[in-house]
Amino acid sequence: MRTVTVPLGERSYRIHIGPNLLQSLGERCRELRLGRRCAVISDVRVAPLYAKLVIKSLEASGFEPVLVKIPAGETAKRVRVAERCYEQLAKNRLERKSFIVALGGGVVGDLAGFLAATYLRGVDFVQAPTTLLAQVDSSVGGKVGVNLAAGKNLVGAFHQPRLVLCDVRTLRTLPKRELAAGMAEVIKYGIIYDAELFARLEADLPKVLKLDAETVADVVARCCEVKAEVVGKDERESGLRAILNFGHTIGHALETISRYGKYIHGEAIAIGQVAAATLSARQLGLSKGELLRIRTLFERASLPVGVRLTRGQIARLLEAMRLDKKVSDGRIKFVLAKRIGEVMVGQDVPEDQITAVLEMTAD
Amino acid sequence: MRTVTVPLGERSYRIHIGPNLLQSLGERCRELRLGRRCAVISDVRVAPLYAKLVIKSLEASGFEPVLVKIPAGETAKRVRVAERCYEQLAKNRLERKSFIVALGGGVVGDLAGFLAATYLRGVDFVQAPTTLLAQVDSSVGGKVGVNLAAGKNLVGAFHQPRLVLCDVRTLRTLPKRELAAGMAEVIKYGIIYDAELFARLEADLPKVLKLDAETVADVVARCCEVKAEVVGKDERESGLRAILNFGHTIGHALETISRYGKYIHGEAIAIGQVAAATLSARQLGLSKGELLRIRTLFERASLPVGVRLTRGQIARLLEAMRLDKKVSDGRIKFVLAKRIGEVMVGQDVPEDQITAVLEMTAD
Repeated sequence: MRTVTVPLGERSYRIHIGPNLLQSLGERCRELRLGRRCAVISDVRVAPLYAKLVIKSLEASGFEPVLVKIPAGETAKRVRVAERCYEQLAKNRLERKSFIVALGGGVVGDLAGFLAATYLRGVDFVQAPTTLLAQVDSSVGGKVGVNLAAGKNLVGAFHQPRLVLCDVRTLRTLPKRELAAGMAEVIKYGIIYDAELFARLEADLPKVLKLDAETVADVVARCCEVKAEVVGKDERESGLRAILNFGHTIGHALETISRYGKYIHGEAIAIGQVAAATLSARQLGLSKGELLRIRTLFERASLPVGVRLTRGQIARLLEAMRLDKKVSDGRIKFVLAKRIGEVMVGQDVPEDQITAVLEMTAD
Repeated sequence: MRTVTVPLGERSYRIHIGPNLLQSLGERCRELRLGRRCAVISDVRVAPLYAKLVIKSLEASGFEPVLVKIPAGETAKRVRVAERCYEQLAKNRLERKSFIVALGGGVVGDLAGFLAATYLRGVDFVQAPTTLLAQVDSSVGGKVGVNLAAGKNLVGAFHQPRLVLCDVRTLRTLPKRELAAGMAEVIKYGIIYDAELFARLEADLPKVLKLDAETVADVVARCCEVKAEVVGKDERESGLRAILNFGHTIGHALETISRYGKYIHGEAIAIGQVAAATLSARQLGLSKGELLRIRTLFERASLPVGVRLTRGQIARLLEAMRLDKKVSDGRIKFVLAKRIGEVMVGQDVPEDQITAVLEMTAD
């Protein structure tokens, strides 16, 4: 088992990464002296696989868990579903000292975290991510929230978990498509922060995709380390943390205009990252060779690297970007790469450049 | 004009109290260098009276305000209304640096504050309370939130405003019933913290109710001082702040079982305070004389001091209390008074005592 600490003073917490960790969830929660009652939030896909195990582990450690199920998929991440969950938490008498466990992917984690941030003005929160994407990204760092019709994650909070348990065994039940989507965030850490990780992925991609236990645990732990370091330095995204948004400006907008339907998050940000890399080549001098390496690695991971859009769709995409949280005074800001392993935030990009790149990257 | 500072380190803020302050809202926001765009949240009763003035003041100082109207009354304080507001904020392109102004009573302030706490994971927030209750209580201290069917304020956050502007002129358009309801919180400060204020209210009640400008500004400022002091010492209610809940355990439950219909908040907590004072006489030795003074002052302010409940209603009331945020390990905790000016928190009260007092206080 690998352990990474997210250094946030008295709100610091640990991420444990390894196989068969879900069994020990109850014990870990007891070590943290969490309250007796808890709600395990999971979706209708993950709950049948792992909820029983988690509930049993919690009960064995003296907790009183209840299971709250939500629909599967991004459409569950909305205010209305949150409202139904709140009423269930209240019905089951969760108190201020109770806690919420997120068991599932990014959607479950984001929604459950938002519930934990706001139910009774905030209760303790534990992440048990079961997808690669959630393990390397959304379960760490405390960003939680729900979507609006107008855009992704427009409502939310910063609410750090008390504990993150990444059981890499759960990746074995993950559909191939979801595994690939998770790779989009893994590759991102290489581009934005760690050229060595990027090179390792180029070498070890087949092993990762075959879920070789050691390699996966290594890679997930390295991603968590990078994220922990970034979040530890800039919890509220006033500076450094924004590098994590590489590929997300276009990616989020793409999800918004396709109504969270066509692309899952990892796919949308794969397209977004290749577009951002292309803009980087034009604006920041990212070399053609590195641009090609980036594009190729996404392709090898079976991720989409472009999208065919009509002029109308491009206009809607730009419109959605203007609504992004990262917009300031109406200007769309980009994270762009100077080279693999180093990015710069807050880059102004003229809209005609964005349009040109979107037209160019059509697959 | 009186000014009170809420001492919270770098999140400290000022409360200004006096007549005709709404006109200067834009100027004050400019002094704080708030972002350009803002949303003024108001309800359909208050907006026709003051929204134009506030919008004009903001525009005159270079801001770009939009008005977002919500229904009047406690029923507006719910998740569904929040969702509609979020979509409007997004539609009007409010950004991270934008801010939200609450123009209205406690419902508007609590809902608008919750929007500010969660829209884009938090934006700046300004309170312009127009009711006595909001001026002395809900606009100060950062507690924001919405209700669930299961109970009041069960969803929320701590989100401090950047500024509170109590324009006491607005109290002139307040219905008598709302003014009386506000007095319930004013009297509370006397009971929990300031015997001198209590005595002053006994002497000056007619002047306050006639809205004598000097007296009202004095009293509002004193209440804000007490609240600022309490909140400054215990922002997140881990101890001292709980004294502010005097009368609220029964009061909230009463609102819940009457579905926020029969009693407005101040009335419910007037009943709750008289019940808590009666329990205090039994449990903590509050003197009969002081209990009578408390009861009498509420009566003189035209507030209800008891309620006739069926056995079934009392059972539902107890049930609602068990769901209160203040419950810990299933035990209902009370704030009780030792004497006027001094209370003790976390008091266990046997349920049969609660029942007996509720039966006794029937009006």
